[in-house]
Amino acid sequence: MNKPKIVILGAGYGGLTTTVKLQKRLGVNDAHITLVNKNDYHYESTWLHENAAGTLHHDRSRFRIKDVIDTGKVNFIQDTVTEIKPDDNKVILENGELYYDYLVVALGFEAATFGIPGLLENAFTIGNINQSRLIRQHIEYNFALYNNEQEKKQERLNIVVGGAGFTGIEFLGELANRVPELCKEYDIDPKLVRIICVEAAPTILPGFDPQLVEYALNSLEARGVEFKVGAMLKECTPEGIVIEKDGEKEEIPTLTTIWAAGVRANSLVEKSGLEHNRGKVEVKPDLRAPSHDNVFVVGDCALIWNKETERPYPPTAQIAMQEADVCAHNLSTLISGGGEIHEFAFNNMGTVASLGHGDAIGVILGDKKIFGWTAAFMKKVIDNRALYKIGGIGLVLKKGKFDIF
Amino acid sequence: MNKPKIVILGAGYGGLTTTVKLQKRLGVNDAHITLVNKNDYHYESTWLHENAAGTLHHDRSRFRIKDVIDTGKVNFIQDTVTEIKPDDNKVILENGELYYDYLVVALGFEAATFGIPGLLENAFTIGNINQSRLIRQHIEYNFALYNNEQEKKQERLNIVVGGAGFTGIEFLGELANRVPELCKEYDIDPKLVRIICVEAAPTILPGFDPQLVEYALNSLEARGVEFKVGAMLKECTPEGIVIEKDGEKEEIPTLTTIWAAGVRANSLVEKSGLEHNRGKVEVKPDLRAPSHDNVFVVGDCALIWNKETERPYPPTAQIAMQEADVCAHNLSTLISGGGEIHEFAFNNMGTVASLGHGDAIGVILGDKKIFGWTAAFMKKVIDNRALYKIGGIGLVLKKGKFDIF
Repeated sequence: MNKPKIVILGAGYGGLTTTVKLQKRLGVNDAHITLVNKNDYHYESTWLHENAAGTLHHDRSRFRIKDVIDTGKVNFIQDTVTEIKPDDNKVILENGELYYDYLVVALGFEAATFGIPGLLENAFTIGNINQSRLIRQHIEYNFALYNNEQEKKQERLNIVVGGAGFTGIEFLGELANRVPELCKEYDIDPKLVRIICVEAAPTILPGFDPQLVEYALNSLEARGVEFKVGAMLKECTPEGIVIEKDGEKEEIPTLTTIWAAGVRANSLVEKSGLEHNRGKVEVKPDLRAPSHDNVFVVGDCALIWNKETERPYPPTAQIAMQEADVCAHNLSTLISGGGEIHEFAFNNMGTVASLGHGDAIGVILGDKKIFGWTAAFMKKVIDNRALYKIGGIGLVLKKGKFDIF
Repeated sequence: MNKPKIVILGAGYGGLTTTVKLQKRLGVNDAHITLVNKNDYHYESTWLHENAAGTLHHDRSRFRIKDVIDTGKVNFIQDTVTEIKPDDNKVILENGELYYDYLVVALGFEAATFGIPGLLENAFTIGNINQSRLIRQHIEYNFALYNNEQEKKQERLNIVVGGAGFTGIEFLGELANRVPELCKEYDIDPKLVRIICVEAAPTILPGFDPQLVEYALNSLEARGVEFKVGAMLKECTPEGIVIEKDGEKEEIPTLTTIWAAGVRANSLVEKSGLEHNRGKVEVKPDLRAPSHDNVFVVGDCALIWNKETERPYPPTAQIAMQEADVCAHNLSTLISGGGEIHEFAFNNMGTVASLGHGDAIGVILGDKKIFGWTAAFMKKVIDNRALYKIGGIGLVLKKGKFDIF
């Protein structure tokens, strides 16, 4: 038996969708498929901000990988990738190594701190389940400490969110809803709590429709969020942050800074020897690496240009899953030796940003603006659709969001 | 109008029971009753270990004082007592002062650390709602941090309980039940967690019946609790504790030490100028201070000798509430000018120590030993009875414990 070996690295949106599509397309005798992931579970990374705020339990955002893969066709290895050696067709894991004929790199994102002093050491990022539940507990722990101190520390009740992009705004929406609950839980006057968002751009949600931006701003400010736009985060220390706006510096004491202003591709890509553009592989239209014909890259590690805007497509779940469809098709085509290789073309299903339970803003059907309950409903449809694509109706029923009223 | 002024300090078991009994005995025109308490709520201090372990929400252990007092008869002041001046018939509060004709001192307990180095600074105590929910959050926060570190710190998962007396054992029982839940919540192997109890006496629960001690030991050890008996706690640092047993020292790394081995009377008593014996007022049989005829002392601030054992009665809720009965009777008798002054006589209703949900040990009806479900059921009866005495059936229905299966 000389079945080609496919190794898929990462079980996020890109890697896991590729896996479940491949197991439908290929028979047991067609290929030897191995999926490698650090955890034995997949998590919905677009839901992590809810886990971090404490408005959704993290177990609602994850499910066992074995529950959606066909273990008769796919060999799952729970391990951490430490090195990719594309010239040797080899991947090094913490506890072993794997040879492949075809590789799918779907290792996702990590936080980018742009060299801002102290950020890496002192800020939290919403990057995975462990980090998200730590943020939830960190905030709660500081609220619990507050009333136990003789000299009350305001920095325990100041929460800073770095970045008013998609993740920052969605997190703020949840946090603004969560804080009153926390105040009740710890006997703290809600007026004492500050939620401060620092954004370098002159507006929140840069790139979004101005009317929707206005809506989001009103929704969040009404719930007490303070925005510092056009302000640069200069430094993050264990006791607070320093921002600069219009040439003037301001210190904000805080023990809780959540950095939501930048992600980059998993740094293993840059170190791998694969040709890359600022850490991402600028894939060919069939999603293969230009330097290595047997390596596919999908999701946040892949760079694809949007020809209309002349900017790269942003790293979203929607794109990762569409890439995974094409990747799985092309891989199975190469292996079975028949059919046509597809080129990736982004089919924009719209974008909806949640502002907390029951509120959201978005653009669907090309240019239709939605907000409020309608948008919040659409957001849940989108979240459930992501589950459906990977695990079918069973997974939607188990982990889906139905609290629409 | 020259109504006598009664001031009651503290709304714990002793003070609040005195208040509700007095408001039944005295009419609006008989006396001017003022109750002073730091919080606007009463808490069941014998339930705090459950709040600290996280097995019972702290809102289940407290209720608003205004819900049980008759505000037409009792003036409630939420303030902190800073000084008692019995020679001036005056009490100093943080935000004012009060003159009284009769004073009831019911200010409860505080932790006693016996000068053990570092204990005051680095250990937690289960003394009130704020402290209890902080312990709950502190343990959970360390579990959350554990999986976010490259180098995992075992001291985050080592929990030390100082003292295997009543409080220590009850807390251990809850903690042993809570840890498996926490491990599930934070993806931690339960085998990694250590719960260590350090007790200076040669046995746990000194003074308890040996057969019941054996039962408790088996119940807790079966759930993973490690006991170090005959071991002195020598020091507590931010990183761990040092114990000494049979002349040999041992360091145990831990970020969580809960000191449950000693309480003393509120130190305001010692500072007040009231005659005292190691911080407690050795009250006369009618519960008045020997040095001041218009001052009653009830609960943990009062010292009463058990003539059978020639030892003082321990500071328990049961005794505090029985004292409150006598105190309220005597006060109203003095004020109305008729009737007989009562002497306090302890009526032992039994003692039951919980070992966690569904398990307990105890002695009732003088010498009947009970354990397991029977004792756990009795414990809930006792807990509900304490609510009943203060707030009647309404309070029992609202805050009582009915999860008996």
